[in-house]
Amino acid sequence: MKKFFFLLLLLVSATLTAQIDRVEPPFWWSNMNLSEVQVMFYGKNISEFDVSTPKEMIITNIRKTENPNYVFVSLQTEGLASGSYEIRFSKKGKKGFSYKYELKQREEGSAHRVGFNSSDAIYLIMPDRFANGNPANDSHPELQEKADRNNPGGRHGGDIEGIINNLDYLEDLGVTAIWSTPLLEDDDPRYSYHTYAQSDVYRIDPRYGTNEDYRRLANEMHKRDMKLIMDYVTNHWGGEHWMIKDLPTYDWVHQFPGYKNSNYRMTTQFDPNRADIDRKLNEDGWFVSTMPDLNQSNPLVLNYLIQNAIWWIEYAGLDGFRVDTYSYNDKTGIAEWTQAIMEEYPDFNIVGEVWMHDQAQISYWQKDSPVGAIQSYNSNLPSVMDFTLHDALMTMFNEDDMGWDRGMVRAYDNFANDFLYADTDNLLVFAGNHDTNRINEQYQGDLKKYKLALTLVLTTRGTPQLYYGDEIGMRGDKPAKGDADIRRDFPGGWSNDSQSAFTAEGRTPEQNEFHAFTKKLLNYRQENEVLQTGKLLQYIPENNVYVYFRYNPEARVMVVINNNPEPQTLDLQRFAEGLNGATSGRDILSGEELQLENSLEIAGKTSLVVELK
Amino acid sequence: MKKFFFLLLLLVSATLTAQIDRVEPPFWWSNMNLSEVQVMFYGKNISEFDVSTPKEMIITNIRKTENPNYVFVSLQTEGLASGSYEIRFSKKGKKGFSYKYELKQREEGSAHRVGFNSSDAIYLIMPDRFANGNPANDSHPELQEKADRNNPGGRHGGDIEGIINNLDYLEDLGVTAIWSTPLLEDDDPRYSYHTYAQSDVYRIDPRYGTNEDYRRLANEMHKRDMKLIMDYVTNHWGGEHWMIKDLPTYDWVHQFPGYKNSNYRMTTQFDPNRADIDRKLNEDGWFVSTMPDLNQSNPLVLNYLIQNAIWWIEYAGLDGFRVDTYSYNDKTGIAEWTQAIMEEYPDFNIVGEVWMHDQAQISYWQKDSPVGAIQSYNSNLPSVMDFTLHDALMTMFNEDDMGWDRGMVRAYDNFANDFLYADTDNLLVFAGNHDTNRINEQYQGDLKKYKLALTLVLTTRGTPQLYYGDEIGMRGDKPAKGDADIRRDFPGGWSNDSQSAFTAEGRTPEQNEFHAFTKKLLNYRQENEVLQTGKLLQYIPENNVYVYFRYNPEARVMVVINNNPEPQTLDLQRFAEGLNGATSGRDILSGEELQLENSLEIAGKTSLVVELK
Repeated sequence: MKKFFFLLLLLVSATLTAQIDRVEPPFWWSNMNLSEVQVMFYGKNISEFDVSTPKEMIITNIRKTENPNYVFVSLQTEGLASGSYEIRFSKKGKKGFSYKYELKQREEGSAHRVGFNSSDAIYLIMPDRFANGNPANDSHPELQEKADRNNPGGRHGGDIEGIINNLDYLEDLGVTAIWSTPLLEDDDPRYSYHTYAQSDVYRIDPRYGTNEDYRRLANEMHKRDMKLIMDYVTNHWGGEHWMIKDLPTYDWVHQFPGYKNSNYRMTTQFDPNRADIDRKLNEDGWFVSTMPDLNQSNPLVLNYLIQNAIWWIEYAGLDGFRVDTYSYNDKTGIAEWTQAIMEEYPDFNIVGEVWMHDQAQISYWQKDSPVGAIQSYNSNLPSVMDFTLHDALMTMFNEDDMGWDRGMVRAYDNFANDFLYADTDNLLVFAGNHDTNRINEQYQGDLKKYKLALTLVLTTRGTPQLYYGDEIGMRGDKPAKGDADIRRDFPGGWSNDSQSAFTAEGRTPEQNEFHAFTKKLLNYRQENEVLQTGKLLQYIPENNVYVYFRYNPEARVMVVINNNPEPQTLDLQRFAEGLNGATSGRDILSGEELQLENSLEIAGKTSLVVELK
Repeated sequence: MKKFFFLLLLLVSATLTAQIDRVEPPFWWSNMNLSEVQVMFYGKNISEFDVSTPKEMIITNIRKTENPNYVFVSLQTEGLASGSYEIRFSKKGKKGFSYKYELKQREEGSAHRVGFNSSDAIYLIMPDRFANGNPANDSHPELQEKADRNNPGGRHGGDIEGIINNLDYLEDLGVTAIWSTPLLEDDDPRYSYHTYAQSDVYRIDPRYGTNEDYRRLANEMHKRDMKLIMDYVTNHWGGEHWMIKDLPTYDWVHQFPGYKNSNYRMTTQFDPNRADIDRKLNEDGWFVSTMPDLNQSNPLVLNYLIQNAIWWIEYAGLDGFRVDTYSYNDKTGIAEWTQAIMEEYPDFNIVGEVWMHDQAQISYWQKDSPVGAIQSYNSNLPSVMDFTLHDALMTMFNEDDMGWDRGMVRAYDNFANDFLYADTDNLLVFAGNHDTNRINEQYQGDLKKYKLALTLVLTTRGTPQLYYGDEIGMRGDKPAKGDADIRRDFPGGWSNDSQSAFTAEGRTPEQNEFHAFTKKLLNYRQENEVLQTGKLLQYIPENNVYVYFRYNPEARVMVVINNNPEPQTLDLQRFAEGLNGATSGRDILSGEELQLENSLEIAGKTSLVVELK
């Protein structure tokens, strides 16, 4: 009989213990600003149990939902030392089970990490397409989609190891930060390589590596004074996300009677004349049918996303976020999310994707925006992307004839509206990303035009961002061939590649020309603060020649972009304010010393970056 | 000897008296807010004289300039009764001369006149091209350019009498206000018909009539409850202006070493990165070489312009100004000018021409603009023109296929930015003016497209403005044939015209169709406050069909513009917020009663203006 009871007890105990399938966040840290951590315990009927903690760890709230498999336990960790705390689950008259919740020691200086800023140059990588450092992880038994490099829209095997292996290449190129498109698990059966449809946001997709590998990437970068930017997705998860398959609450995601797609009209977020149904569909409709739209107005969801974001910063040692589809989120919720992160890390940086075509509309979403303030809205988002400049960059160098509003005027006009922004240094400046046509496709591989575009990107105000492969002239035609074509594999990232563009010897002469120019200008920018934080002074373009200056009390750089195919002679008298008395300078692109007394000659479709003396 | 002295005295006296050639303003009014009037006396060497007044009229300032022919005398009129006050000019030991300065009695209610507003529909006239009421004044012996109706760019003889003669036509059409392009004297030898190069701003050009005729026009309009808007030019005068030929001060106009044209880059007014020379050339450069650019930063000039503007309002009984090239003026000066007028007439209205293509940039110039506030700028200008909507109106009805940002989306997108404006009711909404291509040229005389455009202009928020002749389908091709072609004579305005479009019998059947639609919608708008001041609620266009509502607590109007050439059926469920429970309505265009329970059918390229029940 005693034996029988013992067996029974064992069985029960075993059953109960098995009920914790997930704990998120799996651990936390002591001495966090966010000290009241809401830990989600997941397990079959776990909500039927009572929860208790050691008396020094106070439970401030236990939240159960309509799904008995979840319980959200708020733990007050303020003042608690790092270490393990036993969370006990019990049921009247039955032995329960427990979980040792760890509060880790924070790394020194963690709270005051300095995010990316305009002193950086960011390199955007699609990790599946950059370099395959570990061919052993190309496929993974737990995950549906297997590697198939012959499928343009399939997984090609690039991974974190591949990035780590090429950090020297990037450091030498002169970039100082990496934004990698998402690396968290995406178990979609197809197109999972883009990884925006995540299925587990506490786990690096094993086909890219491990959580530890990701942390190692950050460490390796920090050794090189480089910064790592995570691509965070607040707006949606993948349909394969384990929580989507067992929703904690019905309204964890936006549900309609029937499926509703977003109308993509982000202007409904502020249009005072908008119909409410249009606003709701923009925010709450799903971005695509495979990506359930998260409901950030549900405090459980919002808190889950805040903690997950902070967890990654603290765990991996991140230096920034890029937030996907920022302006599709619940407007209030995303501002709270952003604020929570910035309160935890006041010197961190977050750039949001606000893909709009009007400066006032983009500005709206930046922290302390005077435009957002019109509607008393403050997103708290430090950085937005200069998509209007991108629009200009995609066309202007094909316009030999300036006219009133073409050619270089497009750039000039863009900066004329800078007063609409709260912080122009914190605008991401870019000639392309993983969603746009490639800059070298727009300009049909014309090196001269690439140089003009890159000169502008790297010498105007803001934080420049390059897209992997642009530096070797990579092409890719999105309108004709779709996304896969702008996300081709970087040559040399796979051991069996016929060439490697990672080395000068491996690059073709043409690739070397693209590379050399990029490297020269990136390295110059990195060494010259005036190009990072100097003020901008611009002149109305004449004859398709755009002249501007970056200046601070110590230094001045004059940039001349001649988008006219013919050589031009500039009368320098007009630029007296910018020259500020300088009569000579050195064009750092050609190395030439220039006299700047009366006039300046510049060849057709050429730029000068003149360090003034 | 005595006789000789007497004769000498007579001679001197005669010479001295003759020295007052001009007094401006020629008279003033008692009880004005602007009670300290600065009277400019002009005459050969007049500055050599001492000035005195009756003791009840205090001289607060006497300002002389480097030109001895001017003296500016500031008179304090506060508390003075209307009547004549003798201003005496004397010179030590010599008898002087005097001028009886009159302070007139103000008309009752003058200070609180109510300017045009969104309850109005404005009709823009080029007076030389509208109707020739008095053929005797077509040419004038004092003025250089003579009438020549065969010259498209010449003077054709239209005049104030012609407008007065046709007020019944305009009242019947349903417009409630007239903005006439300038009527003040313009003595340019050519192209004076546009009259923006004025030579005497205290005198109606005799070829249009007399000052008294202008006042009569206002009176005749007021009898019909109509409002008169003067086209005021602060930025420049004509080269033939008498003061330009004998400048009071060197800096009365902007002068450079040599002639400088404006660069027309109005963005330099706020661009934080702009070079100062570019800003200066925009503001101070001349609009064209024949129009000297007035220096509003010179207090004498500014005051002259303020007083002249107020003088016309008070004298003629005006209901509004339209200000030419508003954003080319000295930014501070023009704000002071506007403020002074609005302080004199707090319920007046002024609309400024700010011809830009970005809502933030246009909003910048409106009173209390949240965009202007970013730079602590407040123009005090109550109204600006919705040029971005105009941009949309010029193309969208030719776009059968909507796409993401074409067709009706252009209108929708325009209103999405309404939050940038301080006052959207006070935006001038128009499908063309004397400087743009004619709307019926853009749409090749297509009546259906005209109807769509007019529906939008007359039923959206703002103050609509029509351009003379649009209501009879007048064409005019500016890109191909220049300004004269969009400023053709209104048929029937000249006694020898082969037809008169002023009467139904005189109009062609086609003209009558244009006219009837315009009249119907104008008259409906005039009677329905909801279309004047109701709130706007708009829906994202689908299939190139744009649906919006105007509503207030008492009434609702649903507007449907089907820009798709095919008939469309709308599922009305989507519009529940706008319908607000209404299940039927009457389309005031067709007169049809409509059931609004489930769906609504609309023919291709057609609009509905549905009064909801």
